[in-house]
Amino acid sequence: MPRRDCLKAGASLVFGLLAFLIAFVAAPLAEAQQTDPLPSWNEGAAKQSIIKFVEDVTTESSADFVPIEQRIAVFDNDGTLWVEQPMYVQLAFALDRLRELLPLHPEWKGKQPFKAALEGDYETLLSDGAHGIEEIVGVTHAGMTPEEFEQIVKNWLATALHPRFKRPYTELVYQPMLEVLAYFRAKGFKTFIVSGGGVEFVRAFADATYGVPTDQVIGSSIVTKFERRDGLPLLFRFPEVNFVDDGPGKPVGIEAHIGRRPIAAFGNSDGDLEMLQWTTEAGGRRFGLIVQHTDAVREYAYGKDTLFGRLDLALEAAMLDRWTIADMKNDWKVIFPFEMK
Amino acid sequence: MPRRDCLKAGASLVFGLLAFLIAFVAAPLAEAQQTDPLPSWNEGAAKQSIIKFVEDVTTESSADFVPIEQRIAVFDNDGTLWVEQPMYVQLAFALDRLRELLPLHPEWKGKQPFKAALEGDYETLLSDGAHGIEEIVGVTHAGMTPEEFEQIVKNWLATALHPRFKRPYTELVYQPMLEVLAYFRAKGFKTFIVSGGGVEFVRAFADATYGVPTDQVIGSSIVTKFERRDGLPLLFRFPEVNFVDDGPGKPVGIEAHIGRRPIAAFGNSDGDLEMLQWTTEAGGRRFGLIVQHTDAVREYAYGKDTLFGRLDLALEAAMLDRWTIADMKNDWKVIFPFEMK
Repeated sequence: MPRRDCLKAGASLVFGLLAFLIAFVAAPLAEAQQTDPLPSWNEGAAKQSIIKFVEDVTTESSADFVPIEQRIAVFDNDGTLWVEQPMYVQLAFALDRLRELLPLHPEWKGKQPFKAALEGDYETLLSDGAHGIEEIVGVTHAGMTPEEFEQIVKNWLATALHPRFKRPYTELVYQPMLEVLAYFRAKGFKTFIVSGGGVEFVRAFADATYGVPTDQVIGSSIVTKFERRDGLPLLFRFPEVNFVDDGPGKPVGIEAHIGRRPIAAFGNSDGDLEMLQWTTEAGGRRFGLIVQHTDAVREYAYGKDTLFGRLDLALEAAMLDRWTIADMKNDWKVIFPFEMK
Repeated sequence: MPRRDCLKAGASLVFGLLAFLIAFVAAPLAEAQQTDPLPSWNEGAAKQSIIKFVEDVTTESSADFVPIEQRIAVFDNDGTLWVEQPMYVQLAFALDRLRELLPLHPEWKGKQPFKAALEGDYETLLSDGAHGIEEIVGVTHAGMTPEEFEQIVKNWLATALHPRFKRPYTELVYQPMLEVLAYFRAKGFKTFIVSGGGVEFVRAFADATYGVPTDQVIGSSIVTKFERRDGLPLLFRFPEVNFVDDGPGKPVGIEAHIGRRPIAAFGNSDGDLEMLQWTTEAGGRRFGLIVQHTDAVREYAYGKDTLFGRLDLALEAAMLDRWTIADMKNDWKVIFPFEMK
């Protein structure tokens, strides 16, 4: 073999290695950068505003660059990440559990708020503010350890079906929002769920469904106490409200849990108003988004004066504070993951 | 160049590449595996028990293997991660702040519990349980936003010196425990601080000092409310206790925050008793460790009947539950990071 060929062989070895590196390392990287992070979002102002915000705060040369430890994004759950009609999923759970426990408590049939709950008369149930719900929660969510409660919720989620879609509730999450969660995490954000619902209820499915670990779920809670029973140390859940993580409670819950003001917040109702205000009215580059339920065909159209997920003040504030409106009907190509199959 | 030499040249290129890979990739990996994860711990039962536990729960073929999302380790702060003598650091902060605010409140000189606090009469200050401390905390920790409080704490930590060591308090952290934190994290654990102290106080230095982000700090808290002041949404701190994260409060705080029972817990006093019991008396492979302050020369020797960091019931429980005792004098080569220079 002449020296020239030998050099050629050596060169081809080196180039082969380079080609390998390009094919299996560089190219996928470049491709990843070009791939659409939000494929279920239609092109438009909402999608653009999300991507623009993320690029502004994660590009090191940007004037709005935010260091990774301050990249906190908070997401409401009901109506923002999953379906909340015809009623909050947790209420459906409580009612199923009420019916399950009814044989032990026949007196509920003639006694409020149980009577209203069992008859599906939600107007009456909700007529005295949170009190009716609290009583229902008391008898359905307390009297056990957190581990036992988690198992009860998991068993229910594994079998209960949504009355209209005839699917498990954990399949009725919004595909476009799953993409937002993944996109933000890929860009160094820590994503938290901040729910008006019970923290232990949401934790039972948050990791498997949203990729959000239990310690990144903030929510309402009932009183829990440390005890020894049969010689073993345990926690026990009592029928008494401890914290309501809704409205002005959301910023309080976020501060108690995270200890930092988020830079992005996602909600869909008046219960998210203060969370979005506190997040966005803080100077510096901030992001607020309201999911507006405008699609009666594929999901639901609601907001004004509805029992669950009322959107009134927060829609006004969205204009004032320039929050992004995600109009379900126009901005989302698909609503649920199962539509993608 | 004969064909043989050419082959040799090609081979040497390949072997060169292999040598490179071995030198810069494989060797450091192997070395890392062999490097002592706890260099500041003397060889002995305590060090062995820590390493054995971590290997048992992180080795996939082990009967005690624990999936990564369940690897939760919780650490008390005062006396476990940093010095708590001659008094809790947060109390030193409160007293300095009391003296700073005294010109505005001359009446404190003749009024309990302020008089006792200003005179350093801690027996009197602590004589009515938590009440005296609560009043001091009320006037020194409330009346501002969390952001303002964080800045006050940071300013104080940047200038205050420990009376004996004449160093900033953030230098008086235990080097062997910093190694435990880093070791657990390297093995896939999420590390949380669970302090009887104020959560916002600990958060002001936890990330820089321990590598623990603010959302992984659990602690006591005062009431915080959402308000609008001068048109801006903010949180405001009120002089009222919200939650006491001590004793039986620690498991409650952990459940509220993390939503999972830890598999490892580190403490040093009776305030950590229930946290360690709840963590370890749960079936499955668990780990509890008590730091015992036995070194009057390099740090302090205390525990029995001391005002701060009393260790009595938790030491008895350590025998019963087979928790590891880290005997400062005998188990730790160095106490503080500055000794390593």
